[in-house]
Amino acid sequence: MSRAPTRSSACVIPLPEIRRFVVDCMMAVGTPKNNAEKLAENIVEADYRGFYGHGLNRLAIFVGEVQHSVCNVVGFPKVLKETPATAWIDGNNGFGSVVGSFCMDLAIEKAQKVGIGLVVCKGSNHFGIGSMYTAQALKKNLIGICFTNTSPLVAPPRTRSTVIGTNSISMAAPGMNADSFNLDMATSAVSRGTIEMQQKKHLIIPSAWADSGSGALCPLGGTETNSSYKGYGLAVLVEVLCGILSGGAYGSNIRMLGSFDKLADLGHCFIAIDPKGFATGFEGRLSDLMETLRRTQPIDPKNPVLIAGDREKLHMKSVDQAGGVTYTRDQLEASAKIAKNLRVKPLQPK
Amino acid sequence: MSRAPTRSSACVIPLPEIRRFVVDCMMAVGTPKNNAEKLAENIVEADYRGFYGHGLNRLAIFVGEVQHSVCNVVGFPKVLKETPATAWIDGNNGFGSVVGSFCMDLAIEKAQKVGIGLVVCKGSNHFGIGSMYTAQALKKNLIGICFTNTSPLVAPPRTRSTVIGTNSISMAAPGMNADSFNLDMATSAVSRGTIEMQQKKHLIIPSAWADSGSGALCPLGGTETNSSYKGYGLAVLVEVLCGILSGGAYGSNIRMLGSFDKLADLGHCFIAIDPKGFATGFEGRLSDLMETLRRTQPIDPKNPVLIAGDREKLHMKSVDQAGGVTYTRDQLEASAKIAKNLRVKPLQPK
Repeated sequence: MSRAPTRSSACVIPLPEIRRFVVDCMMAVGTPKNNAEKLAENIVEADYRGFYGHGLNRLAIFVGEVQHSVCNVVGFPKVLKETPATAWIDGNNGFGSVVGSFCMDLAIEKAQKVGIGLVVCKGSNHFGIGSMYTAQALKKNLIGICFTNTSPLVAPPRTRSTVIGTNSISMAAPGMNADSFNLDMATSAVSRGTIEMQQKKHLIIPSAWADSGSGALCPLGGTETNSSYKGYGLAVLVEVLCGILSGGAYGSNIRMLGSFDKLADLGHCFIAIDPKGFATGFEGRLSDLMETLRRTQPIDPKNPVLIAGDREKLHMKSVDQAGGVTYTRDQLEASAKIAKNLRVKPLQPK
Repeated sequence: MSRAPTRSSACVIPLPEIRRFVVDCMMAVGTPKNNAEKLAENIVEADYRGFYGHGLNRLAIFVGEVQHSVCNVVGFPKVLKETPATAWIDGNNGFGSVVGSFCMDLAIEKAQKVGIGLVVCKGSNHFGIGSMYTAQALKKNLIGICFTNTSPLVAPPRTRSTVIGTNSISMAAPGMNADSFNLDMATSAVSRGTIEMQQKKHLIIPSAWADSGSGALCPLGGTETNSSYKGYGLAVLVEVLCGILSGGAYGSNIRMLGSFDKLADLGHCFIAIDPKGFATGFEGRLSDLMETLRRTQPIDPKNPVLIAGDREKLHMKSVDQAGGVTYTRDQLEASAKIAKNLRVKPLQPK
């Protein structure tokens, strides 16, 4: 979700500077340069797209995981089983971004040979935004799909207990003239970050988002009357393709994000599909569908109908225009604290 | 969704008798016996599982399609392109149930050889319930997934125009002791059938279900505040894998259900995955997850937490106990009308 910070207390940081800062921080805790760069790429891309919850906001957690030795800075994925179309991977407790990038590359390679590649991994860590990996497929004119399980933050319908993750679904598909469909969504009604923002602003949390007492997130749909069993069903679908298929942690066995009591052992699932294996003219048809949808008569002309990814594209444009990402004072203070602790040069504004 | 008819005006029809009736009706309009049986199997299974909207309720439409020559009773699928892991199919305007069953069998065959099979078709017709096809994979201890596009009944967020389908997502995955996960959901908040039932009962239609004026269905999520762009995004994801990938009709180009002005040219997508290509013990882990979820402490002990498919299993049990499907007077009268028109022996109650 694109959530621009208020200008008053904000500061613009150019993308290369965010990258430099993240690499410095991760190297300061012993991460090899190539892996630090892979993680930085992911964090920068999240803030660039406006997924602030998954950007610099997560740096302290990544640093903490390394300092508490629950994530292996040199961990590199290993292929455990393979067919021409599938692979089962052990992420060896490496960074989610390192594991994810490896797995999607392998899925792409298989899709280019037999039309589809399905790569499933266990032993991974938080992989940031799914768009990062579906974008790898997009660059090769393939459809990219990815799923991940997460810490249990969601209460199924009929209970207040958090026993399933916000398990996300991402898809990117290529249209004409560099246009694309880019879905990247949690299967919960809203993200944990959205709840935190409401709380910081002392705003009421709608009952269709989360339980006001426990903070347990609702599945997409919000209430049973409004079909939240569908959002819950999708969360389990994702878990089947991630934790259950891979043999990693799943459901309520997964540790909470930011806790360092055990390995994350997350599971992800990556799919690449080559449209050339099917009807010719895929990109043209997708662009036609997207344009038709965007041109649908809106209720309010100021709020046109969008395609998944349009909001992120607008955000990227605004970052380009501003010359960098606009962070709030809170975010900058958190980064300054990390810089001080690790004796790293703080973020330098534009 | 399981919606039991009221007992007062209802009548129990044994499953073989429903099958006999559907086969007789379809053969009376010129359908060869094997294809009539395939369609009947689908209709009976829908009512057996409690998906009444997709059961006998749809017989008049299937009969009408044949009578108006917009569906080819002898249409049989043809493979247009193939790799060891994928296939592109032309349904040749055959029954959706004939096309779907063929495609999932092919996906299964490929999954058994290379771990995954992806089969995408165009030129199909309404295929009934997705569970029918995912069950084919389940019988072989595979994960089955299927998607279909539909007539445009859903208005994306910010518009009242119906430009995308209720595009459904189904998954079946095998657990231990014949237990299974069975998701079968439209990506709209509720189905068209649910709206029709509310209207028949003169009940208010919640604004999170549909626009009260136009009847346009809301995507899952209901309102933009409650993330209906996610349900809409999922509908487009399904369309990418169905109409766009297959080269069939898509989005608002698809004809309305029950209209006979042009061919349906629906697209479906079928995936089979062999868990043996990944970590051993898939069934055990899935059963553990399902049992943990079912045992989660409920808010109201009378309403336990369910797994997708549990509701249908309960319905099937109640049908078995009753000795058949309990139809309402409305449904029986509609069937009697079809019987009279086609000069077929009417449904015989138990």
